[in-house]
Order: sequence, then structure tokens, then C-alpha cells
Amino acid sequence: MDFNLDNHISKTPDFPKDGITFYDFSPALEDGVILRQMMDALCEISSPLKPDVIAGIDARGFLFATPLAMAMGCGAVMVRKKGKLPGDVIEKSYALEYGEATLSLQTSRQIKGKRILLVDDLLATGGTVSASVDLIKQAGGIIAGTACLIELTGLGGRAILADKGCPVVSLQSYEF
Amino acid sequence: MDFNLDNHISKTPDFPKDGITFYDFSPALEDGVILRQMMDALCEISSPLKPDVIAGIDARGFLFATPLAMAMGCGAVMVRKKGKLPGDVIEKSYALEYGEATLSLQTSRQIKGKRILLVDDLLATGGTVSASVDLIKQAGGIIAGTACLIELTGLGGRAILADKGCPVVSLQSYEF
Repeated sequence: MDFNLDNHISKTPDFPKDGITFYDFSPALEDGVILRQMMDALCEISSPLKPDVIAGIDARGFLFATPLAMAMGCGAVMVRKKGKLPGDVIEKSYALEYGEATLSLQTSRQIKGKRILLVDDLLATGGTVSASVDLIKQAGGIIAGTACLIELTGLGGRAILADKGCPVVSLQSYEF
Repeated sequence: MDFNLDNHISKTPDFPKDGITFYDFSPALEDGVILRQMMDALCEISSPLKPDVIAGIDARGFLFATPLAMAMGCGAVMVRKKGKLPGDVIEKSYALEYGEATLSLQTSRQIKGKRILLVDDLLATGGTVSASVDLIKQAGGIIAGTACLIELTGLGGRAILADKGCPVVSLQSYEF
């Protein structure tokens, strides 16, 4: 990677709550040159995972799922928050620090037997991605891995996903 | 457009509530060839609007904002649901059929004096896009227009946006 993505990620302390730093890729996104470099780099580290389909995780993962899919000649599917997708869906709930969240995937999507690469902006504890992995497996998909822009290495998401057979690639790491 | 997008849009009656048909582009998205054709076509009809920046509307608009931005050599910004963006934001609330919703935009984004193209998947009554137009104007941006995959022509969104100086381009029309 011959550009410094960190220079284009803003850090907001105590958002969305005290003690959490929010890593915001908005500055990278709004610079057309950096956006292109970032997506080329994400494609380069994702290609060895040989996906057939890119699964974007609601909502920021959507920004990266379609460019990755197009660069790799794949299609894309949405892993969405509960209640957003029409038709028959499968759902998976997972614990948040307070309460829980539910993700959903349409049963009509062509997942079975295909290698699925999950895409999100940030990997932290791995809860969201882990629930997405469960959904893809339930739909008969093969987990190719997860690609994310930013990984918080101190929160253990990579190890949790490794236990599920889901390798992680990321462009930029921070501890917390 | 030398492909039939309608063939790749599924129609779910009475979703998310009775009397509404949900037009779902998921079949188009998951077909790598159709995804490429769809984005090429969206880029072709959007180019005459000469945007400097693409503004994707949370959440499905994100899927199309980054590929459009990359095809046009632009950057992209997010118009997000309330509470999702760190740092200083401006907000705009608008009426839904029941209750209201609030959209937000970071004040740190480079909007002022730039031509902004809004992107969403579907234009219906125009409420969401209209609120987004207000946010962009408040941030000092120039409205280039709105690009969407699907337009429901019977719901009047195009006329409401025309009154705000916001031309609309869309790939596929249905009445309701």
C-alpha cells in the first residue's frame, strides 16, 4: 500500500459513548484519489480469498461491497438490519454491550455452495461479522473471509472469526 | 440501456406495509454482469449533471455512491440517519407517513461550492431526497441533481425536487 490511509481517518474520542474512539473513514471517502487507492488496496488484499460473491454488511459495508464486487467481477448481496429486507429471510441475533441486534439475509439470494467474502468498514469485537458468518453458513455459503478497512486489534475479533474458519484482511490497524 | 433492469428487480406486494409494493434490486446486485451494466448505465445518465462529489443516502444509496464516484473520479460523502456520524453535524427532520425521520451530514465534509449529486436506490414521494437536498444547501453545496435506480412516477417526487432545483435521473420507472 503506497499511501497512508491513517492520514485520512479521523479519530473522534468518546463517540458513540465514553471511552470509545470512533475511527471515521469519511476523509478518505471524500477524496477521489484516496478512495481509488483505498479500494484498489482492499481489492488486492481480498483477491487471495477468491470470493464468488461479496456480502456487504449494513450500512457502511455497503460503500465498499459494490466497488469490490465490480473490481472482482462478482455480484454483491446485503446483510441487513432486521425488518429491512422483503420476502423470506433468515435472521441472527447477537449481543451488543447493551441489548442486542439482529441481522437478516434473504433466502432467495444465491449463496449456496458459493465462496462469500464479508465486507465491513471496521472489525472490533467481531460480533457483527460473526453473526453474518453464521447467516452465510446457514444459507449454505462457504466463508471466504472478511475484508475491512480498519481493525481494532486489541478487541479480539480476528481470533473469534478464526475459530469460525473466517480469515480477516484489513488495511489499517489500531489497538483500540 | 441495452439490458432490461426490470427483469432483475423483484416485486414484493404489501411490504413494508399493506398497499405498498417493494421494488428490490437484490437480484440485479447479485449478478456481477448486471451489476456492471446497471452501474455503467447509472453513470451514463448521471454524467451530464457534472458532479464534483457523490452523496450517498443511508443505507442502500451507499451501494451505488462509491461505484459512481469512482467511475466519475469523484469522492463520496454519507448522508446518514441521526446519531451515526461523529463530530459536528447538521440535521434535517422530515415527515414520514407515521412519525418522522432525521438525516445528518458532517460539517467537516468538503461540500461548500461543490456540485453534489445525491444517490439513492428509489425515489418515491421524495421526502428523503428533499431533506438531503436541504442539508447539502445548508452546507453550502450546489445541487447537481439526484440519481436513483428506481423511480415511482405516480408519487410526485420528481416535481417536488424540481421545485428545489434538483433534476432527477433514474434507470427504471414504475407508477406505484
